[in-house]
Amino acid sequence: MKTYAVDLGGTRIKLAIIIDGEICVTKIIPAHSDQGLADRLPQISDILKEMDLNYQQIQLDGVGMAFPGIVNFYENRIVTSNEKYKDAANTDIIGWAKREFHTKIILDNDANAALLGEVYYGAAKGCENVAMMILGTGVGTASMIRGQMIRGIHGQAGCLSGHITMNLNGRRCNCGNQGCLEANASTWALPYLVKETEQYLDSPFRKEPVQDFSTLRTYYQKGDPLAKYLFDHCVAYWGAGAVNLIHSYDPELIVLSGGVSRFTEIIRPIQKWIDEYAWTPWGRVRIIPAKQPESSVLLGLHYLVEESKKGVQ
Amino acid sequence: MKTYAVDLGGTRIKLAIIIDGEICVTKIIPAHSDQGLADRLPQISDILKEMDLNYQQIQLDGVGMAFPGIVNFYENRIVTSNEKYKDAANTDIIGWAKREFHTKIILDNDANAALLGEVYYGAAKGCENVAMMILGTGVGTASMIRGQMIRGIHGQAGCLSGHITMNLNGRRCNCGNQGCLEANASTWALPYLVKETEQYLDSPFRKEPVQDFSTLRTYYQKGDPLAKYLFDHCVAYWGAGAVNLIHSYDPELIVLSGGVSRFTEIIRPIQKWIDEYAWTPWGRVRIIPAKQPESSVLLGLHYLVEESKKGVQ
Repeated sequence: MKTYAVDLGGTRIKLAIIIDGEICVTKIIPAHSDQGLADRLPQISDILKEMDLNYQQIQLDGVGMAFPGIVNFYENRIVTSNEKYKDAANTDIIGWAKREFHTKIILDNDANAALLGEVYYGAAKGCENVAMMILGTGVGTASMIRGQMIRGIHGQAGCLSGHITMNLNGRRCNCGNQGCLEANASTWALPYLVKETEQYLDSPFRKEPVQDFSTLRTYYQKGDPLAKYLFDHCVAYWGAGAVNLIHSYDPELIVLSGGVSRFTEIIRPIQKWIDEYAWTPWGRVRIIPAKQPESSVLLGLHYLVEESKKGVQ
Repeated sequence: MKTYAVDLGGTRIKLAIIIDGEICVTKIIPAHSDQGLADRLPQISDILKEMDLNYQQIQLDGVGMAFPGIVNFYENRIVTSNEKYKDAANTDIIGWAKREFHTKIILDNDANAALLGEVYYGAAKGCENVAMMILGTGVGTASMIRGQMIRGIHGQAGCLSGHITMNLNGRRCNCGNQGCLEANASTWALPYLVKETEQYLDSPFRKEPVQDFSTLRTYYQKGDPLAKYLFDHCVAYWGAGAVNLIHSYDPELIVLSGGVSRFTEIIRPIQKWIDEYAWTPWGRVRIIPAKQPESSVLLGLHYLVEESKKGVQ
């Protein structure tokens, strides 16, 4: 019933002790993901042990770790990340967990874990056909059909719908593909989007570069036309990206999460796009905010560890 | 071991008697799909009975029927088509099979059946992670992950990757979505594509309208620059569409079929696009032509009927 959960983010690492679906204690440490994973593991295990001091009478069922890149769930190994924790695929994570905690570790992609967290403890409770869209630095996705996670044989299915070509003549994405959703509407793409517009030279963004949607939103609310144009541009891409998820995986529900989804005013126009463009003769796909945006990944890891325990017994 | 197979196409209906994976006799009749399905069923059963005269000593295991639209496989019913056989969803096909042949009928989407045919009797034999791309009037797709067909709870997953938005500002597709792959590169889209080009008014296509890729190819081979531009445009979309399939379903192999795939020179540039743009750290996805382009749907239906027989016994 007790799980250690480790959510490796690009800028922060979240740690938690979870007992029976309840997060008992949680801690956030800086990621320094550019310095690799191997150097961070000793600190992670030290902190987890310290966090667990009050819960030692409860047996540890295992550790769950979420990674912001491609994970082969069936082989329980990290395949690759785009730019973060570059040594992760060659780091002996299984050995680390065994050595430090005398237990197994389960690895999964972070968006997959987030979807599982929302399905079992959050906004999508009881739903077996559901997709997730995580708007942040990039665009993460995950999908479940008839209660089964879509993972693909190499861990590349479901999690890469942010890397669908939506603009054939557009910018090359940092994944190597052409005109991905993520390259057209994400925090990392925002500075490029701004500079490509005709209005850029006459805009306030020439002096104050736009690094995130928070800044963009402030200017939008002041009535700046370029901010409005960019906001509408991104919302249209997210709407069409949601329809692409629907036409790919046939969900009944889409859960929206990630830093950008804090701006809840984006939900209505994305829903409107779905209502206008999705081909769903059976009914209407709803898009709703995550219930546990800060902890769905941790709870999803808890679910995976406890499920695997059931499988063994 | 004996199956009747009915492949309902937009312009032709293919009928076959299949015994142990062998097509014994086949017949093609005009579809008149604009006149609906109910009127065609009596003729279909009459012809099948006639075709079966030499095989009556072998027990009929069931009938398989492939439909060019959305089929809910789990509920064994046709949901909707885009424009063909408009009465199909309200036609009692199960009752027809029971009345005429005293047996069950299994319904599936035609691209799904084609993929199963290629996996069990064709180019993808032995492959459990495979996608299909059928280039014809529209763009049909199907996908299998770890030996399981991707269908979706309402029958909308896997078969709709031709309806992924690839050009947000592009033409509205006849499915209702914006800038689909199919609306940018398919036989039905071709006349629109031609007329949108700047060179149209000075081109030979002003006098001889381009209705299909066969005409386009003839002009391409004569060195016509507009034909070359359009051919390259479509091949780029099919290449990016193949990468979208890869990033959605993680296949090891893509099987190419449909009328347009007869022009085998399109395979190399699509492969080149995949090699350049797909994010597949595990290796290289190959695209290969269907082995049974004319009969893969029929053979896939045979597989489904025989499999369901196994399940019952």
